Amino acid sequence: MAIPIPTDRVEVRNRPLERGFNACLLRPSDFASSGPEFEVIGAFNPGVVQTENGIVLLVRVAEQPVERRRGFVGLPRWDPQSQRPVIDWTPQDEVAPVDVRVVRQKRDGLVRLTFISHLRVLYSRDGRTIEGQSGVHLEPGNALEEFGVEDPRITRIGDAYYVTYVAVSRHGVATALASTRDFKQFDRRGLIFCPENKDVALFPERIGGAYYALHRPNGATPFTKPEIWIASSPDLLHWGQHERLLSGGEAWDLGRIGGGAPPIRTKLGWLEIYHGNSKGEAEKNVGTYSGGLLLLEGENPRRVLGRRGQVFVPETDFEREGFVPNVVFPTGVVQNGDKLLVFYGAADTFVGIVEFSLDEILHRVRPQ
Amino acid sequence: MAIPIPTDRVEVRNRPLERGFNACLLRPSDFASSGPEFEVIGAFNPGVVQTENGIVLLVRVAEQPVERRRGFVGLPRWDPQSQRPVIDWTPQDEVAPVDVRVVRQKRDGLVRLTFISHLRVLYSRDGRTIEGQSGVHLEPGNALEEFGVEDPRITRIGDAYYVTYVAVSRHGVATALASTRDFKQFDRRGLIFCPENKDVALFPERIGGAYYALHRPNGATPFTKPEIWIASSPDLLHWGQHERLLSGGEAWDLGRIGGGAPPIRTKLGWLEIYHGNSKGEAEKNVGTYSGGLLLLEGENPRRVLGRRGQVFVPETDFEREGFVPNVVFPTGVVQNGDKLLVFYGAADTFVGIVEFSLDEILHRVRPQ
Repeated sequence: MAIPIPTDRVEVRNRPLERGFNACLLRPSDFASSGPEFEVIGAFNPGVVQTENGIVLLVRVAEQPVERRRGFVGLPRWDPQSQRPVIDWTPQDEVAPVDVRVVRQKRDGLVRLTFISHLRVLYSRDGRTIEGQSGVHLEPGNALEEFGVEDPRITRIGDAYYVTYVAVSRHGVATALASTRDFKQFDRRGLIFCPENKDVALFPERIGGAYYALHRPNGATPFTKPEIWIASSPDLLHWGQHERLLSGGEAWDLGRIGGGAPPIRTKLGWLEIYHGNSKGEAEKNVGTYSGGLLLLEGENPRRVLGRRGQVFVPETDFEREGFVPNVVFPTGVVQNGDKLLVFYGAADTFVGIVEFSLDEILHRVRPQ
Repeated sequence: MAIPIPTDRVEVRNRPLERGFNACLLRPSDFASSGPEFEVIGAFNPGVVQTENGIVLLVRVAEQPVERRRGFVGLPRWDPQSQRPVIDWTPQDEVAPVDVRVVRQKRDGLVRLTFISHLRVLYSRDGRTIEGQSGVHLEPGNALEEFGVEDPRITRIGDAYYVTYVAVSRHGVATALASTRDFKQFDRRGLIFCPENKDVALFPERIGGAYYALHRPNGATPFTKPEIWIASSPDLLHWGQHERLLSGGEAWDLGRIGGGAPPIRTKLGWLEIYHGNSKGEAEKNVGTYSGGLLLLEGENPRRVLGRRGQVFVPETDFEREGFVPNVVFPTGVVQNGDKLLVFYGAADTFVGIVEFSLDEILHRVRPQ
């Protein structure tokens, strides 16, 4: 399944990190759909964690209706009664397209996704090949997830694995928590960040007695540039002491900025691989998603020690062409000696894996 | 200072509650400005609580620059260095007006307020007259409050008073917590709800072991109708288990809906006096703010037992004319036997007080 694709570098302002092993690890065609009425259009943005049984991936699988009905758009939705996705066939002239991912209902101005996502568990020994799909799915489970569950991040804390994932519904885009010990059963622990909030990544240990998370609020009032925030918690379920950590606003992160993979401890402090998006007000397309590096103080992750933007940019065909072109979206990292295996969504369609040198990363992000 | 003003009822769909004593309790002219360069344009949206020393009001005082400079707009901001409000004189052609309260910077699309608010402590024995201003101010105190502190709610829990208030800055509109025992010294306890979130009202006791709050998330993606949410906490500082409680979407609460006064316990359950705003997409003005009634289960405030919209609507001159016309915005309630004294912001300019019959309220909101 792992097919390295030749890179085709584009001009960027920051020199990209040297890519070691780099491959498209998973494609939509690797996945069976949830039923005959759906097709898988994306397998991307994986949560990833190293376990005693190898590397576990929790992959976001996005599906669209197979059928095309002239004059209608099929908008999928989880049905709590049947516990299955269903399709709302909506007259084309009742919605306006926003981008490839979203339409707006003319009636009330509310938006709907053109696809619906759930999460699937896969295993890999080395991160370079997939051993198999476990058959375990984390599907939408309640009214706050009716438009899908998306973009998981996994953090091991003690003996348990904590999954933060995006819950999308007519009530907004929020972040929920689930925990598991075996990736067979998941305990839903409720919404930990209310709408709008996504890109939540948990730190893997208590720091000064508290748990920490990166998060990305996204408000309706345009007081703010795109920002990553940080919060702390006594129990992983309740969060407070919210502070702004980092603002975007340069060309590469003008549109959005958010936590990516859960932070890892290094000799220089907490290393966070985050993302930025270049979409400006005037742009019609979605913009380019790239990766950046952030170094936070080991004993006080509210303090930024170093930052280096846009060192991981869409270069390969599978990053530049897909459902949403020009996207690399890092969501998981596994340390393997002096290498970091970074797992990422590519073009909102594929799972990519790339090896970076930890030394090079720390050299680039260390305080100047 | 308390001057009853004759009411002038307007046609509404729900029959308004019978108003007992009703007065404009505080006006901008009752307050000295923070300095000669500022004038007080509003004294409204008061947090209110019954104490052993009578009723305490924490009034939002909004100020604007006195000076008018041709071709410039003066945008106030708290300066952390001098611990004083300062004025950014911005060329008129660099901003576009959004409404009377807000301008948008053309350069980056970000918005600024045309005024800045802080909070002042006042005392009243009976709620009908003000005994005096204590001279204690709760001013902006950090970077997350640089555009002002607004719209406090006060809840007594045990021996302490907890003030939730809106913190406005270039980082968004969020809700912070402060605590006090004497209304002389306030301890800032940090942001408890990250942007966008306001209209946070704390319940006055633990319910089933947890603290509860109503809040109003306000997301950038228009997935949602306006909604009130509910969350719980082990310690008042960290919040989770977020759930949607109530959605707007009728004519009177099409634009916004949010918690008002902190809930009070009644024989039928928790009574919440909340607000709705009628602003539609097409409307150029701010819309009308009215009050509604909500009844929540005593032992499980996540459960809505009854609801009655728009029973308190702008009627008097001081509610219909001011900085923002047609606003009643209930923010505090004191029980006085079988009467409820409801304190509210009027027209974003005045503090109003109105007496309602608790029996009538419960009759109107009780489960049908």
